Amino acid sequence: MPTTTLDIAAAARRAIDEKTKPLGALGVLEDVAVRLAILQDTLAPDVEQAAVAVFAGDHGVVAEGVSAYPPQVTAEMMRNFARGGAAINVLARAGGLAVEVIDVGVDAELAGIEGLVHAKVRRGTRNLCTEPALTLPELDAALAVGRDAARRAAAAGARALGLGEMGIGNTTSAAALLSALTGAPPERAVGRGTGVDDAGLARKRDAVARALVRHAGVAHDPRAALAALGGLEIAAMAGAAIEGARLRVAVVADGFISSVAVLAALGIDPSISPALFAAHRSAESGHALALDALGLAPLLDLGMRLGEGTGAALAIPLLRAAARVMREMATFASAGVSGKDA
Amino acid sequence: MPTTTLDIAAAARRAIDEKTKPLGALGVLEDVAVRLAILQDTLAPDVEQAAVAVFAGDHGVVAEGVSAYPPQVTAEMMRNFARGGAAINVLARAGGLAVEVIDVGVDAELAGIEGLVHAKVRRGTRNLCTEPALTLPELDAALAVGRDAARRAAAAGARALGLGEMGIGNTTSAAALLSALTGAPPERAVGRGTGVDDAGLARKRDAVARALVRHAGVAHDPRAALAALGGLEIAAMAGAAIEGARLRVAVVADGFISSVAVLAALGIDPSISPALFAAHRSAESGHALALDALGLAPLLDLGMRLGEGTGAALAIPLLRAAARVMREMATFASAGVSGKDA
Repeated sequence: MPTTTLDIAAAARRAIDEKTKPLGALGVLEDVAVRLAILQDTLAPDVEQAAVAVFAGDHGVVAEGVSAYPPQVTAEMMRNFARGGAAINVLARAGGLAVEVIDVGVDAELAGIEGLVHAKVRRGTRNLCTEPALTLPELDAALAVGRDAARRAAAAGARALGLGEMGIGNTTSAAALLSALTGAPPERAVGRGTGVDDAGLARKRDAVARALVRHAGVAHDPRAALAALGGLEIAAMAGAAIEGARLRVAVVADGFISSVAVLAALGIDPSISPALFAAHRSAESGHALALDALGLAPLLDLGMRLGEGTGAALAIPLLRAAARVMREMATFASAGVSGKDA
Repeated sequence: MPTTTLDIAAAARRAIDEKTKPLGALGVLEDVAVRLAILQDTLAPDVEQAAVAVFAGDHGVVAEGVSAYPPQVTAEMMRNFARGGAAINVLARAGGLAVEVIDVGVDAELAGIEGLVHAKVRRGTRNLCTEPALTLPELDAALAVGRDAARRAAAAGARALGLGEMGIGNTTSAAALLSALTGAPPERAVGRGTGVDDAGLARKRDAVARALVRHAGVAHDPRAALAALGGLEIAAMAGAAIEGARLRVAVVADGFISSVAVLAALGIDPSISPALFAAHRSAESGHALALDALGLAPLLDLGMRLGEGTGAALAIPLLRAAARVMREMATFASAGVSGKDA
């Protein structure tokens, strides 16, 4: 670790401890403030401007009957995003966040829709139960779409980037990827997603188990795993995490799928770790596994399981508040307030 | 329960269920949205404007050596609030909230300080270990100060009001009051507050135990308990909760002391229940007891224990977001999105 990181870490901790509050009384917010100071290499961290990138793609694995919703919902929701009517649009407006919705791989012609970023790599993935979901060149193209989105966000001034997704079938892909990356058994990684019934859940578990057998060779190579088991939107989120971190933007993982994408990114490039934050603990059962593997404690626990970046949109204002604590709070000395046991 | 409350509750639940998301996928946010719709009696609830009221008072019980900080910190912090340098100032700015800081009973002459509301009832309470902290007329005056603050906030347009406090010694008063209101033993109600050491904690427990013996007769009368064991800022928060609820403003309890004040308010006027929200789970040990007694699940759990309304300032944006979900999200029908298993 470079000396400068140690210096700023110690200075940031000292700065927080001198603020007019009992030691540690702002809890997790203090740790977030210190991490932001380290990431931005300043005792005046700033997250006033921030964004959410929502990557969308379809999944060949829906042929296995793994989703409660029909696949055309991905494209229908893209129109909803473009009109500003989806949950992420609403929550981003509430939080003062920019939103960009990127078609990385929706299985529909969306080129005519204004208000979306058109960066389709292909129309959906292949069925990961029977063949690799993506070729390596397709994976690289999807990673590049994510990197581009992170660069656009940073160029527009964003100091935090929430990673959201939309893609019918993508909890199945994410569960398979999580199992491959962590070795966790499929029954722990697979949950109900948007709400499959017991029979659908059994089909998901079976699909993931078959996929892991089919692609057993990829387990220790995050890039290969991402290609074989991932999705175009999942790969794009991984690319955005890698590039966002490189640009010292706080990368805010959303729920289950987003967190698995960030875990794959961390496998590809472990140096991104200081930039990573976990927005919330999703109700999707495999999310806790993903958070444990990331080593991140989520900021919120509101029983949400929607995706789209909705958890990130609610959590980024907490990063913004933490940065302001570091930047704006008076110290005991500056405010003339007596210390403990004075 | 009037028919209209049932009607709006059912209509609000139906409206949330028709939004473009899987059923229940926004978790707690959906419940908050429904409660706000009921409180405001509309399917378009609105919490864009909101405020935090910070009530300050001193405590005669500090004579028992129950705080890690000297009593003059209350007055020193009032100057810090007035200059905008305290945590609540910073977090309220971050959340776009108005802040009002009210001197209900600081044991210092603060009349010359601009930017505070001067409504001092008396300079601190009496020592609750040896006599009632307040007379009933003093209690009524403090309740009125709180009611006035809620009316000012509502008149300025606030649809949610966070209740914060500042007062060296007030976790001891709140712990005694919580024990009296719930019957919980002092060792469960008393925590370390701003950070007393083991000896200080033992003194706090002893002070609370003696106070409960001294004022054993008040246990089943919330007003009498509030006078005997409470504080001026605690009574004012109770008054603000009662009046805020009457004006259909969402009343957002902050941490331990604030929640105990709201519990006393609920004892005085059980009809305020629909207006009450819990911002966060404080690290102060007795807070869980207070939340259980209120029957409220907190929105945040960030290990905070600062008071001042800081938890409320972070939670109110979640109410705002929930209201926007109800107000702004498209429905499956309006967005042309296919439903589950379509």
